Amino acid sequence: MDLDRLGEFGLIARLASHIPHRSRRVVKGIGDDCAVYSQPGGNYLVVTADALIESVHFDLNTTTPEQLGWKTVAVNASDVAAMGAAPRFAVVTLGIPKTTKVNFLDRLYKGLGRACEAFGVDLVGGDTVSTPEHWMLSLTMLGETRKKRLFTRKGAKAGDAILMTGTVGDSALGLQILKSPGKKWSGSPADRKHLIQRHLEPTARVKETAKLAKSRLRVTSMIDVSDGLGQDLGHLLSASEVGAELWEASLPLSKPFENTCIKNGLEAGELALGGGEDYELLFTLKSEDVKKLLRSFVNYGTPVTQIGEVTARQGVVWVRTNGRRQTLRKPAGFNHF
Amino acid sequence: MDLDRLGEFGLIARLASHIPHRSRRVVKGIGDDCAVYSQPGGNYLVVTADALIESVHFDLNTTTPEQLGWKTVAVNASDVAAMGAAPRFAVVTLGIPKTTKVNFLDRLYKGLGRACEAFGVDLVGGDTVSTPEHWMLSLTMLGETRKKRLFTRKGAKAGDAILMTGTVGDSALGLQILKSPGKKWSGSPADRKHLIQRHLEPTARVKETAKLAKSRLRVTSMIDVSDGLGQDLGHLLSASEVGAELWEASLPLSKPFENTCIKNGLEAGELALGGGEDYELLFTLKSEDVKKLLRSFVNYGTPVTQIGEVTARQGVVWVRTNGRRQTLRKPAGFNHF
Ligand SMILES: Nc1ncnc2c1ncn2[C@@H]1O[C@H](COP(=O)(O)OP(=O)(O)O)[C@@H](O)[C@H]1O
Ligand SMILES: Nc1ncnc2c1ncn2[C@@H]1O[C@H](COP(=O)(O)OP(=O)(O)O)[C@@H](O)[C@H]1O
Repeated sequence: MDLDRLGEFGLIARLASHIPHRSRRVVKGIGDDCAVYSQPGGNYLVVTADALIESVHFDLNTTTPEQLGWKTVAVNASDVAAMGAAPRFAVVTLGIPKTTKVNFLDRLYKGLGRACEAFGVDLVGGDTVSTPEHWMLSLTMLGETRKKRLFTRKGAKAGDAILMTGTVGDSALGLQILKSPGKKWSGSPADRKHLIQRHLEPTARVKETAKLAKSRLRVTSMIDVSDGLGQDLGHLLSASEVGAELWEASLPLSKPFENTCIKNGLEAGELALGGGEDYELLFTLKSEDVKKLLRSFVNYGTPVTQIGEVTARQGVVWVRTNGRRQTLRKPAGFNHF
Repeated sequence: MDLDRLGEFGLIARLASHIPHRSRRVVKGIGDDCAVYSQPGGNYLVVTADALIESVHFDLNTTTPEQLGWKTVAVNASDVAAMGAAPRFAVVTLGIPKTTKVNFLDRLYKGLGRACEAFGVDLVGGDTVSTPEHWMLSLTMLGETRKKRLFTRKGAKAGDAILMTGTVGDSALGLQILKSPGKKWSGSPADRKHLIQRHLEPTARVKETAKLAKSRLRVTSMIDVSDGLGQDLGHLLSASEVGAELWEASLPLSKPFENTCIKNGLEAGELALGGGEDYELLFTLKSEDVKKLLRSFVNYGTPVTQIGEVTARQGVVWVRTNGRRQTLRKPAGFNHF
């Protein structure tokens, strides 16, 4: 059988079936943003890995080495944050072609170092290997959380509010701009630069998750938006065995994103729903706590917005700005194959 | 500057200088077989990563997918064992070309699963990405040890005995045989098969390190032999700021290794000293404890042998079987570039 018949998630499920599960200390194995392992002291360790491959995930003609280093740390910190955990330490595997210049590696490590500093991570080790041709960077990050404040994809209940941090769609549009150097874009170059930067230097919501974990707000489930809002919401809902209404009119869109969409005749809602790599937190909350949460994020710097509601009935109803209700069968998003 | 001017270890030291060190919980960062991170309960977590790249570290014409999966787990478990720690869990990053057959992946995961079972590891997650051309496998493994039983490269004192588990050289000779399919080898095919198997399916000394960690034997330093006995002994000695006498006549050589060397006119001692990937434990012990240790390993299944002695004077004196004493300036071994 070929890979494309199975798809990414079909493949992972199949591979997981070969792995014997041994220890009771594995609280969560394959299937969430991080795996969870219980520690003797009663805390939880969370662990995640993300690899970036040259020409698949990045292009050294448009990404600086500093940005590449930064992004590698940020995408992993985002997975740790999505569990309600604080990033602690990481190891990096570097695959480099023999022709690599040391100056390039210095700059890569400056970016890694800056992101480690920003997200509170210690890079404690790694492995360095040579590759036949393409660059490869793989990072494994460990975080910690108290048992009671572990957030997972499972736990959303009908009636809960659906919220997200930041804005959605910037990164996908930034990537689209990067990938079409020949195209004539209308609108402001500063807007386009902002969108590209959001793609190349994403942030991770480490402070925001810490604020939520410290609060008494009843967060019922969480995921980070990496594959695309539609697809990641789908993951969260299927883990929780519920459905949702998603409100197009409420999606938090940045000004540069809205402007660029309007000026170039792009469907903002579709792009926001399907585009990946926002690295925002998507979470559900007991509806009685919404007001308190929104109040606590006033003047905080990071916007938090309610974008829908959990329903008992499975599937996602996409409530368009024009009032039309559309059922999303298979949420759009990024498939890695 | 180019990579080959700097060398692997020069490069790692240089990259490490860009990384801010933040937390006091980092007991050991870059520079040992594993990094060490202290846990709230007082135990230590150890962490290591090793990547295998197709055409650099393995060749799918001579390695089965099961062996590849097995080896990926074993080499990491060996680094964990070298810290006196017990392997606990791992995450794997898989980079696969789009043309990969699912059956191949099934077999890879059977090998991974079998090794996880053998070494007591839970594979809790990972990442799956597509690569332009070559296979890539990167595994990060976490282990645990009690604070008092952490073994590191540093701690060997003049007068300590140098010991190792198992035999040395098999894997390097196995690789040599694999890499010369056109060559006419003399001696028994069964011997050559054994050596190749030692290269493709190495073991990790997880039980042996647990036995040492549980005992009252005063192990003063430890490393695993991955780059070659000479080079890894060099790492241990320089971390401990001591030297050594290494006794060629005492090196534990397997019968298949000795036979194949003799029949093909190969210098057994040189090969054992320079060849990598034995994945045996190399350690130092207070000399008063040697007898007790050797006794405790009688009938245990894994041989343990004294192969030399730590000296105050730095450098390695290689005492040949013919009585000649040779100073090894730069120990032979595997450089990854
Ligand atoms: N790219 C890297 N970034 C940070 N640390 C690294 C990197 N590569 C290797 N290291 C660290 O350098 C040390 C030596 O690495 P290595 O020779 O691969 O160890 P080993 O042979 O025991 O696996 C280890 O502490 C490892 O964690
Ligand atoms: N090759 C693999 N082996 C084992 N588990 C894997 C592998 N690839 C991915 N996983 C696991 O499958 C789940 C989904 O992976 P992924 O889509 O990459 O998550 P995310 O997008 O949140 O990083 C995660 O729990 C991850 O740990």
